[in-house]
Amino acid sequence: MNDLASLRSAIEAELSDFISFENQNLIDVDIELSPVAAALSQYILQGGKRIRPIFALVGYLGTGATLNSSVIKAAASLELLQACALIHDDLIDGSDNRRGMLSIHKNFEKYHLTNHRAGNATNFGVAAAVLLGDLALVWSDKCINDSKISSEARLLLNPIHDSMRIEIMAGQYLDVLEQTMTNTSVERALKIARFKSGKYTIERPLHFGAALAVPKNFNTLISIYSEYGLPLGEAFQLRDDLLGVFGDPTETGKPAGDDLREGKRTALIAYTYDRSDSGNQKVLDSLLGKADLNLAEIENLRGIIIDSGAKTHVEDLIEKLAEEALEAIERNEISTEAKTLLVELVAIATKRSK
Amino acid sequence: MNDLASLRSAIEAELSDFISFENQNLIDVDIELSPVAAALSQYILQGGKRIRPIFALVGYLGTGATLNSSVIKAAASLELLQACALIHDDLIDGSDNRRGMLSIHKNFEKYHLTNHRAGNATNFGVAAAVLLGDLALVWSDKCINDSKISSEARLLLNPIHDSMRIEIMAGQYLDVLEQTMTNTSVERALKIARFKSGKYTIERPLHFGAALAVPKNFNTLISIYSEYGLPLGEAFQLRDDLLGVFGDPTETGKPAGDDLREGKRTALIAYTYDRSDSGNQKVLDSLLGKADLNLAEIENLRGIIIDSGAKTHVEDLIEKLAEEALEAIERNEISTEAKTLLVELVAIATKRSK
Repeated sequence: MNDLASLRSAIEAELSDFISFENQNLIDVDIELSPVAAALSQYILQGGKRIRPIFALVGYLGTGATLNSSVIKAAASLELLQACALIHDDLIDGSDNRRGMLSIHKNFEKYHLTNHRAGNATNFGVAAAVLLGDLALVWSDKCINDSKISSEARLLLNPIHDSMRIEIMAGQYLDVLEQTMTNTSVERALKIARFKSGKYTIERPLHFGAALAVPKNFNTLISIYSEYGLPLGEAFQLRDDLLGVFGDPTETGKPAGDDLREGKRTALIAYTYDRSDSGNQKVLDSLLGKADLNLAEIENLRGIIIDSGAKTHVEDLIEKLAEEALEAIERNEISTEAKTLLVELVAIATKRSK
Repeated sequence: MNDLASLRSAIEAELSDFISFENQNLIDVDIELSPVAAALSQYILQGGKRIRPIFALVGYLGTGATLNSSVIKAAASLELLQACALIHDDLIDGSDNRRGMLSIHKNFEKYHLTNHRAGNATNFGVAAAVLLGDLALVWSDKCINDSKISSEARLLLNPIHDSMRIEIMAGQYLDVLEQTMTNTSVERALKIARFKSGKYTIERPLHFGAALAVPKNFNTLISIYSEYGLPLGEAFQLRDDLLGVFGDPTETGKPAGDDLREGKRTALIAYTYDRSDSGNQKVLDSLLGKADLNLAEIENLRGIIIDSGAKTHVEDLIEKLAEEALEAIERNEISTEAKTLLVELVAIATKRSK
């Protein structure tokens, strides 16, 4: 029987091997690429919950098949795709930190300054982040190509992998667009959360894993995984919204109230608007997205979110969605081993502190 | 017998079909994605020499195999990869125009302003360009996945496709890094040109096409295509360097002397430094990369480049490299049809005006 810790270790090992190998390839092109290799190694290997590869492996185990190194390597690729998403996301949001380290654009801005390079350090950081994100995206595909999964598995996997990658880019664009709206909408916030994070984090990785096993009952499993993955993905994102406002910086690796400072239009914020009087709505308008928000202002915003009832509402919603997910897997089509893991993952996705 | 014009039309048709289909997929996710679909359509379909897909098809024809729609579709994917490279390149270089249209970041900055969106229009443009470039990269892979090429072809193709994509990202990073150097180097400029453009534009597309045919003499063809593609790729890039300084804006779709304004450290500029006295080197230092360079200053720089002999040297080098490429294909292993096309392509790659 596999437990989550052993799945995670197996993923770490494959990821570490792949990155060492690719780093050497980069350095063989030119020694000047060693900072690129070092930055990507650190970014990818030092931190991360590996939640998407884990869901992929559990999706695979759900078919009753036995794990092998090809499957683990293919699943690990999802962490490289996630690295692309995070590197580009940080750049777009202007976030300086990630997992307690500098984000990639800040890291290379610092490299430029420390090495007294010519030209504009900020622009260099932006360029590096664009390119390192692209490289991580190419690596994620190469990791699957190198995994030696069967051609049958690959044919089943491709449409899922493509949809997943298109959904995350589309969801991310809708999220950026949402920040340019002059009003908030719960409906839009939930839709963005579904595309940007929900489907991409849980539903699609489960489908990805199922495809790797090429099971006879593929279509049935896909449906069950959607019934489990969609509500859980939404709950995962709602937990993220709460952590972005109320999370402990020592756990999240991000500054306190980071989402408030960025002015993110999350479902939590949309609920707060809906449930606040015009006085508090004005305070929200004036403080959300203020780059130099101080702790007193953060506390003020947190108070408004709590008093509006939005925080409790989101907590209740997370619980309801978690129950929906649990109900979906009460089916004989999924292996007992996977069922146990999927139950554990509901708790992890919805009750996490980072 | 296929001619270059018919290959180009076949590629246009596949590209246009693919993009219509994917645009509809985007709009099905959310109507707010229609500007994304429209911008990518326009960017990809209105312009572009299709040189990489053409080389891929000629590489395929070199094996003696007959074209089919799967092969054309897979080859067309290279134009989507190129769209990613250009969108991100324009963003990194701060170029406002591409093919006579606004670059993607400028296009979305304008969209933000025209629609009176909240927040910072420039940041919105940057975010959109990052994400649309990512989407084009994912599309390029999906285009191959959807092409229905055989699994054998795909297995042969994957390592070539992966190397190609890694090389372009690595080359692009080295190029960005080069702009932060306080001195120029012919050796470095040529190396960057080789990775960023030479291999990626000619050698790798030929390999890509050869793989699609799964020929018995695959390794021999790969060597011949490298012997042809590497010098021709270098010549192609050197022509690009000349066009960036001396090109006609009505042909190139870019402002006059664009590379001078950007301060690009090309091989042409490195040769000019090497062959100029300290007085002219100081003029180069003070004017190259000056954002508001006027026409008189551009003429001054052009004069220095011509007087140093660098322009003539680069022209001679292009001719020598073109001859090397032509010699490489005097081999019986390549089909007569492909040989004719490869000879034509030497002229196009080295004598073009845009």
